[in-house]
Amino acid sequence: MTPRIPDFADVVAAAARLGPHIVRTPVMRSPAFDARVGCSVFFKCENLQTGGAFKYRGAMNVLLQLDPQRTPLVITHSSGNHGNALALAARARGMRAIVVIPRDSARSKIAAIEAAGARIELCEPGLPAREKRLAEILAREPAELVHPFDDERIIAGQGTAALELLAEIPALEVISTPVGGGGLIGGTALAARVLAPGIRVVGAEPAQADDAYQSFRSGERRSVNAPATIADGLRGSIGVRNFELLRTHVDDVVTVSEAEIVAAMRVVLDDLKLLIEPSSAVPVAAALAGRLGPRGQRVGIVLSGGNVDLGLCPFLRGDGIR
Amino acid sequence: MTPRIPDFADVVAAAARLGPHIVRTPVMRSPAFDARVGCSVFFKCENLQTGGAFKYRGAMNVLLQLDPQRTPLVITHSSGNHGNALALAARARGMRAIVVIPRDSARSKIAAIEAAGARIELCEPGLPAREKRLAEILAREPAELVHPFDDERIIAGQGTAALELLAEIPALEVISTPVGGGGLIGGTALAARVLAPGIRVVGAEPAQADDAYQSFRSGERRSVNAPATIADGLRGSIGVRNFELLRTHVDDVVTVSEAEIVAAMRVVLDDLKLLIEPSSAVPVAAALAGRLGPRGQRVGIVLSGGNVDLGLCPFLRGDGIR
Repeated sequence: MTPRIPDFADVVAAAARLGPHIVRTPVMRSPAFDARVGCSVFFKCENLQTGGAFKYRGAMNVLLQLDPQRTPLVITHSSGNHGNALALAARARGMRAIVVIPRDSARSKIAAIEAAGARIELCEPGLPAREKRLAEILAREPAELVHPFDDERIIAGQGTAALELLAEIPALEVISTPVGGGGLIGGTALAARVLAPGIRVVGAEPAQADDAYQSFRSGERRSVNAPATIADGLRGSIGVRNFELLRTHVDDVVTVSEAEIVAAMRVVLDDLKLLIEPSSAVPVAAALAGRLGPRGQRVGIVLSGGNVDLGLCPFLRGDGIR
Repeated sequence: MTPRIPDFADVVAAAARLGPHIVRTPVMRSPAFDARVGCSVFFKCENLQTGGAFKYRGAMNVLLQLDPQRTPLVITHSSGNHGNALALAARARGMRAIVVIPRDSARSKIAAIEAAGARIELCEPGLPAREKRLAEILAREPAELVHPFDDERIIAGQGTAALELLAEIPALEVISTPVGGGGLIGGTALAARVLAPGIRVVGAEPAQADDAYQSFRSGERRSVNAPATIADGLRGSIGVRNFELLRTHVDDVVTVSEAEIVAAMRVVLDDLKLLIEPSSAVPVAAALAGRLGPRGQRVGIVLSGGNVDLGLCPFLRGDGIR
């Protein structure tokens, strides 16, 4: 079966459907950050979305198209934020959720998914292990599978963040998001191609998990298994629908190092007073390294999430900061 | 000479004067925080103000009333944020600034003031040492003194944050700010008394620097010298005009421990994804401890600033966070 590739109309329909069910997140700026990069940068703060990440948009876009009476149980696998989003969306819709999650995910994310009322099923890291576990459960329990990224409803939902950003901020010349499975960059590209035809759409990826970069360069979909990156939301490999959108609608994919990711988290905390998770810091790091294009441009960046495990942050353990 | 006590009209005039010169900061909410305290809490994000703190409002309100030709040089003493604000406001107005600053202030604040173009004069901690140094300089150089809090123009300017919050969020039952010298709580009380007559105005103070608490309870203005609190913005003692407003317009002053302050910083980072400085965390800590009143209320909190020295935050030094 040929997978259905979503289009701009799907993103617009998702935005109309999501309406009051999501947070219309603020767009923030920082003169200090602009001075660092020599550009005017507009940050779409999806770290302030319900559940602390853009993933709630896609998950809710799927669940609003399901009837809770006929489909009381949904299931997914997720490195964290999608599972959290699906759990929260299921609760809001009166449905139950099962989340298959790799053991090496951030503890704060696992705890949040449990708190949101989902049943957790732990699995080994890597996409093959996740899919195997999912299949085992689906063989026993009838549930609607909500894939974290390779689903046209998910991609369309994720695209609504860029839709809002582009509607609010005119004349952007570049828009960048992180690339994991490719739901966010795919939806963003769909929104951008119509709303801002001349814009450059740039995916940003950890060099340690550069499956999309390799796929984009080679023209063939490639994957990496359990990559060693701090950006725990970007360890998955690009999906089928997502690669098709990447190939046809995205202008470039750039990579950043692990040290650049951590430095970018710090810069955002310093300049914008905002906590972002490592995955979110990837396009910020690309901007700081000058990899989103020449100086002087108007740049939009989707800050994808803010779920960081603060238990690992010594200065906040109660010892004082001096 | 009897000091002039500002009134509500001064706050309204300041808001009109400040207009486009300041950031109209966002009001943020967090369901997770609301669940912790059993209240609906609205955070006025002055950590996102120009210079990273509410202090820019007061400083700019003074400088917009001075003629840069006739008054090319301004001077102040400040534990950090007021000095930074005055330096930035002076630069914006084409004036020069001298800032007398205690040696024990946060390094990030001193660096920011220098970067903003002010001349730095270091002094020993404590209000008497600051005032002595200021007098020495004023004896040599003619400059307009812009006191950090005991000035009716400063108090009126600081009140514009609460004016915005109360105009945007109806039916608040409590509003709380930190208390250092008393510029913010004084201006807030002026705005609240007219815009929200039944509201309770509560000042929050570190127990280690409880001069306003003691003053409020005893009915006599008291001071503390070089108090040992992590909240470096609140080490000064309450001013003359500020005490008068505290006595007549504020409903209560509550205190919090140092551990409660640090814990509150972490909670805000976790729930709101926002970095706030220790001084800002003081009313948040009071809310978390239930000291702002019973559950079920609508509470406004002014997050006064976000200038934290990230060099002291190990997980952001580039070591990775896992």
